[in-house]
Amino acid sequence: MTARTPAEALAAHREAVEELRARVSDLHAELPRWNLVTWTSGNVSARVPGADLMVIKPSGVSYDDLGPADIVVCDLRGNVVEGRHRPSSDTFAHAHLYRERPDIGGVVHTHSPYATAWAARGEAIPCVITAMADEFGGDIPVGPFALIGDDAIGRGVLDTLAGHRSPAVLMRGHGVFTVGPTAASAVKAAVMCEDAAHTVHIARQAGPVERLPQEHIDALHERYRTAYGQ
Amino acid sequence: MTARTPAEALAAHREAVEELRARVSDLHAELPRWNLVTWTSGNVSARVPGADLMVIKPSGVSYDDLGPADIVVCDLRGNVVEGRHRPSSDTFAHAHLYRERPDIGGVVHTHSPYATAWAARGEAIPCVITAMADEFGGDIPVGPFALIGDDAIGRGVLDTLAGHRSPAVLMRGHGVFTVGPTAASAVKAAVMCEDAAHTVHIARQAGPVERLPQEHIDALHERYRTAYGQ
Amino acid sequence: MTARTPAEALAAHREAVEELRARVSDLHAELPRWNLVTWTSGNVSARVPGADLMVIKPSGVSYDDLGPADIVVCDLRGNVVEGRHRPSSDTFAHAHLYRERPDIGGVVHTHSPYATAWAARGEAIPCVITAMADEFGGDIPVGPFALIGDDAIGRGVLDTLAGHRSPAVLMRGHGVFTVGPTAASAVKAAVMCEDAAHTVHIARQAGPVERLPQEHIDALHERYRTAYGQ
Amino acid sequence: MTARTPAEALAAHREAVEELRARVSDLHAELPRWNLVTWTSGNVSARVPGADLMVIKPSGVSYDDLGPADIVVCDLRGNVVEGRHRPSSDTFAHAHLYRERPDIGGVVHTHSPYATAWAARGEAIPCVITAMADEFGGDIPVGPFALIGDDAIGRGVLDTLAGHRSPAVLMRGHGVFTVGPTAASAVKAAVMCEDAAHTVHIARQAGPVERLPQEHIDALHERYRTAYGQ
Repeated sequence: MTARTPAEALAAHREAVEELRARVSDLHAELPRWNLVTWTSGNVSARVPGADLMVIKPSGVSYDDLGPADIVVCDLRGNVVEGRHRPSSDTFAHAHLYRERPDIGGVVHTHSPYATAWAARGEAIPCVITAMADEFGGDIPVGPFALIGDDAIGRGVLDTLAGHRSPAVLMRGHGVFTVGPTAASAVKAAVMCEDAAHTVHIARQAGPVERLPQEHIDALHERYRTAYGQ
Repeated sequence: MTARTPAEALAAHREAVEELRARVSDLHAELPRWNLVTWTSGNVSARVPGADLMVIKPSGVSYDDLGPADIVVCDLRGNVVEGRHRPSSDTFAHAHLYRERPDIGGVVHTHSPYATAWAARGEAIPCVITAMADEFGGDIPVGPFALIGDDAIGRGVLDTLAGHRSPAVLMRGHGVFTVGPTAASAVKAAVMCEDAAHTVHIARQAGPVERLPQEHIDALHERYRTAYGQ
Repeated sequence: MTARTPAEALAAHREAVEELRARVSDLHAELPRWNLVTWTSGNVSARVPGADLMVIKPSGVSYDDLGPADIVVCDLRGNVVEGRHRPSSDTFAHAHLYRERPDIGGVVHTHSPYATAWAARGEAIPCVITAMADEFGGDIPVGPFALIGDDAIGRGVLDTLAGHRSPAVLMRGHGVFTVGPTAASAVKAAVMCEDAAHTVHIARQAGPVERLPQEHIDALHERYRTAYGQ
Repeated sequence: MTARTPAEALAAHREAVEELRARVSDLHAELPRWNLVTWTSGNVSARVPGADLMVIKPSGVSYDDLGPADIVVCDLRGNVVEGRHRPSSDTFAHAHLYRERPDIGGVVHTHSPYATAWAARGEAIPCVITAMADEFGGDIPVGPFALIGDDAIGRGVLDTLAGHRSPAVLMRGHGVFTVGPTAASAVKAAVMCEDAAHTVHIARQAGPVERLPQEHIDALHERYRTAYGQ
């Protein structure tokens, strides 16, 4: 697969790419709906399964104006393979995650306000409610401060993910990155991350909160992974 | 009635079941509307009057995609009697409430953020405003921490309800359960619970608040139960 | 005019009453839109000019279901003159305001969360921003705690209004009443009151705030009353 | 150009004026959408390029009712040149900015709640997150208290802008003014300003936050200005 040029890979996966473009375009509508983004400040990407390609939001385009044809196809170095727009300025970070972790099929980046507030303080969100045990399997951790533009953000996200069950990382002084086997699961993690950041912030404003006992967190997370949903 | 099999009971109440499915499907739209849920995290159920049956949300299905045909019929042990989906992972808790309390006709579960913040601290919401006296007749109490999967949550909710007028219980470290004679009344209680949790949280952030005098709470609650509405 | 029976007054003002019913029905849509109400918890009324009559929301009816024909006509003692529903349980308070203050043409009551939080503490909202000077001409004052059901709330509102320029009163432990020459102006005051309650709450959370100098408040209020709008 | 009368300038730029009226009318819809305004409390204007003219919102008109034909054309002293309504009561402030700074093509004024809360305390928003470095290039500064009605507000905004990269100024005890080369860029700055005010407020509620290092702010701002968007 990797021996082919990106253009050949694209031709070989044309149908899957167009489907992913439509799905990723639709998933962007979830970002304003769940109050995760302001103006054009968040993005969703998806890996093209079986190819060294990804699809991602164009830079600075309004969620209202976004359609499948606007979604950009890049290789896993962040180079544009096809697209009528420039890709998100976060493309290098997304590409790094796909390149290094074959199990990741979707990535989301937001500056959602409550999660970003924890990130501004550089403080992990403690696992004090069952919904966090379910989705994150523990605390939502903080990654390092890293400048945009090369692999620094992607490396920081991966290093932080490595020590935790959480599919979400709070990048210090910046915002949230979430990953998942699909773009939809990464979007869900971003939505639940903001909800956890909000609820635990409110809880702590009025008094101390205690982390759930580890054995309860383990039991809840295991059950959620295996018994929830259809 | 209980001598019949669940399938026989379903056949005998077909019309009522289909009506309840439509009503419960519609009531789920109130959950995102009043900011009680994130992604798929809350559920509504209703008892089928005169039968040992209930109808409930399927697990992990989006509120957008939910129609009457998706609502699952269960017996009061939580076993599926009819449905094209698996029922909510909270089904055992709902079933327990219907089995033990024949006066309960509807149950709602949410992780609404302000109420869940009180639950994370394990703190009851004090009755400091007339709207709480009206709907809850006093404080909104806190129930025990309980793991999902068997009767523990249902028992914790019932034990807590027993000592209070409130149709809402904050389950510690988890979220909210509300009950009522109908599913609509349980939804209303869930909506008013989040509103009370929000308003009293804000009030207390800026200084102390005092519980209303008991005789005023009693008078307001009695009047609301008997003189409000149509 | 007062020598006529309410039914005669209604017949003589039929056209105006139907117009007001439509206007008041429409104005109720502003309450959920600006986050002033939960479920069915707020109401708008209007005086019928030149008659001892008022029109008001029915009790416990959803804003979605509300149309002009649902609006109830009452006399200024709160008795129903015409309507297919029971009037708001706050009708006596509205009626009292119209009876005692001929200059009042519209009344709004809400439990909007930020304003009600100030009311729960029994604390006036200090005039620290120009928007408050414009609309309220000073602090938004607190009235007494009063039980629903007779003239106590109406009297408390009027006594409090008497000492202030503000068209809004925070009734202690309860919620907000606003008045104006028209129902639309009372709705505007209710919307601006919640906005002031929200903004000043946030401001004070992070440090002290200072009341604007009285001469600036006076100048801003005078200008707003005479030079704003069309 | 300045030798022509305003009416002659308008005739010479008729097409551009009508296009700007439509654009400015549309941009007003962004204000309620991003929770920047309450009732009719914010306004957008645009310079007519090449003429000493501007277009601006009429005073006290609802965002729902606003169409291109409602937008008022003024000269850069704030006098109406064409319009069926009176212009915004903030017209003098907008006009002052266009008159003194030829590079400004759009101005927005709001009382958005979080930003106004910082303004009520007279406190600049510190640059603690990358999104602020991107859009504002540093802190969002505070300008003086100034009464409405003459050039005082406009002068206060300009004096404050002069010492900062930020296109947004928090006017003490009042609200927000933003500027940009176009009306759309000023609207974007107003939206991002409220988001920054919100996120940094939340962050600080739970502990101290640190300003990003100056060299990171510089790098982020430079990159954003040159590499973001299409």
